[in-house]
Amino acid sequence: MIEPLRILDDAVEILDQRRLPEEETYWHCTSADDVVQAIRSLAIRGAPLIGVAGCYGLWLEAKRLKDQANFYESLDQAKAYIISARPTAVNLSWAVERVWREVDPERPPLETIEMLLQEATRLGVEEWERNRQIAAWGTSLLTSSSNILTHCNTGSLATVGMGTALGIIRHAFHAGLVDHVWVDETRPLLQGARLTAWELDREGIPLSLITDSMAASVMNQGRVDVVIVGADRICTNGDTANKIGTYSLAVLAHYHKIPFYVAAPTSTIDASLKDGSLIPIEERDADEVRKVRQCQIAPPGISAYNPAFDVTPGSLITAIITEKGVARPPFQTSLALWMKPAEQERVQDND
Amino acid sequence: MIEPLRILDDAVEILDQRRLPEEETYWHCTSADDVVQAIRSLAIRGAPLIGVAGCYGLWLEAKRLKDQANFYESLDQAKAYIISARPTAVNLSWAVERVWREVDPERPPLETIEMLLQEATRLGVEEWERNRQIAAWGTSLLTSSSNILTHCNTGSLATVGMGTALGIIRHAFHAGLVDHVWVDETRPLLQGARLTAWELDREGIPLSLITDSMAASVMNQGRVDVVIVGADRICTNGDTANKIGTYSLAVLAHYHKIPFYVAAPTSTIDASLKDGSLIPIEERDADEVRKVRQCQIAPPGISAYNPAFDVTPGSLITAIITEKGVARPPFQTSLALWMKPAEQERVQDND
Repeated sequence: MIEPLRILDDAVEILDQRRLPEEETYWHCTSADDVVQAIRSLAIRGAPLIGVAGCYGLWLEAKRLKDQANFYESLDQAKAYIISARPTAVNLSWAVERVWREVDPERPPLETIEMLLQEATRLGVEEWERNRQIAAWGTSLLTSSSNILTHCNTGSLATVGMGTALGIIRHAFHAGLVDHVWVDETRPLLQGARLTAWELDREGIPLSLITDSMAASVMNQGRVDVVIVGADRICTNGDTANKIGTYSLAVLAHYHKIPFYVAAPTSTIDASLKDGSLIPIEERDADEVRKVRQCQIAPPGISAYNPAFDVTPGSLITAIITEKGVARPPFQTSLALWMKPAEQERVQDND
Repeated sequence: MIEPLRILDDAVEILDQRRLPEEETYWHCTSADDVVQAIRSLAIRGAPLIGVAGCYGLWLEAKRLKDQANFYESLDQAKAYIISARPTAVNLSWAVERVWREVDPERPPLETIEMLLQEATRLGVEEWERNRQIAAWGTSLLTSSSNILTHCNTGSLATVGMGTALGIIRHAFHAGLVDHVWVDETRPLLQGARLTAWELDREGIPLSLITDSMAASVMNQGRVDVVIVGADRICTNGDTANKIGTYSLAVLAHYHKIPFYVAAPTSTIDASLKDGSLIPIEERDADEVRKVRQCQIAPPGISAYNPAFDVTPGSLITAIITEKGVARPPFQTSLALWMKPAEQERVQDND
């Protein structure tokens, strides 16, 4: 298993994903600032993973501050600083705030340090278990000799554990159900080529890397049995925001009558949004399109459009695979079963 | 207008398209060998354009050989050498053989040299005129404020003149009908990002470069009124081979109810092929997928699939725009009108 995070006695080592696949370099972190720099620079990415990394950052900072008089005050500042590293990633603040609720300023610093390590570890273990459950549910949908197409990176480099969509592929492969994996390179940032291909290759899972423009042709040749992707946000009607190019695959799968599955933990369901028109789509720097890694590919000043995500309507999704089970349309009903009563009420208010 | 070929008194200068858009470097050619090296290395590309370049190569070689005793024998060898530069590009051998039919070994070399220059120039003029006619027919299909999406490069860098699909866009823009052009980057070789974006930008035509994976999202936002692409080979039923990714766009356009047009001269119609299943699809070096230009993007040894073309069924094509007019379904009937009787017979034999 690939380790995007290594926990040592007095440090955390973060795999620098920007240098993959050429180099497997670990970033040695001994403070909150080290962890924040790693998150901001995208050395570490993936919402569930940076949540866990943030908690370990708080632990490192507590160790560093242990002999200071204003231990709890300084730690509180460090907490806010860690959360600021990626303000849009809900998982980071959710995870760090969850751990912070266990902090008691009446206790000696050494006890708090020990508690922070335990809580960070517990979060990682829970994350690991959710992936395992998603993988088991997803595998139950596959038949033998499956040819699976996937997009972006949803593996061990984005989560803690085996991954979501990629976790299903791993689990199904070891159950003998996977013939071949088609990996979309996933322009502009190439998470498929750089990360997914690398993860699968290390594990001996047969794959072919393709450009995003080849997926339709491979489907038309009858060489794709199922498409499985991850999710960044899921609305209560099943509309799903995910890496740009996902919607394209959903339309192509629909045309070729290929099942299209979304795999994500239930924490990805946003109970406050009833449909995808409400999801804000982040538009990123046009240089990501004008360049490929360090390489200029277009006239420097040219106009380029760079939406980081697209929204796939629930009507194009065959099923949503979560740690709690498989939701099928109508998603308003099937997803609602997994929401807390308070969240269900919120949805009704929005209607 | 961009000049992919410049004709001087005693040389031909070829724009090195591999170095675009960073550098506009011309390759100074004074012999058949110079031209062959330029074609083989893809410094010059595009079937119609290399046909014309090959004819100028024959002229250069005749000038070089003019004082040799065995002038016509050596020139014959040079002809075969030029044709060998791209054995699969039908246009190259077609163009050079057409010029060669005018060669008369009884005439003094100086007259032949003059004739070769005239014939090469005539071919270029014809090519230019065909593009103009395609552009006019294509423009007749557009309404004002059109937002057009295109793929690969079908402009002045692939043809002589204004181009095929890009020729229509140019012509329509100057007729005041084009609001915006969406340019697919066209992985793996990025002809859209490197060449089409560059051509449009130089001409002041408003464009946005996008990755191939963004086309569906842009269509879904209602920001594409029409898709126009070129063609490498068209079967008698309208099935069309073109740059990989074209089929994907055709399915996406169909889903979003957007007209999908193919623009090409009638010489692209292969009267011997009744449907696309008969078109051989060239599979190229996997390194084109594993790399972007000089930049490695995936683990070096990883498996990658790299079909250079895909086939779009005629059933997904709204119309085929040629220099002779606009063909609409059923293409068996509409395209047959433009074939010579001998070619029509050949088609019937295949049935």
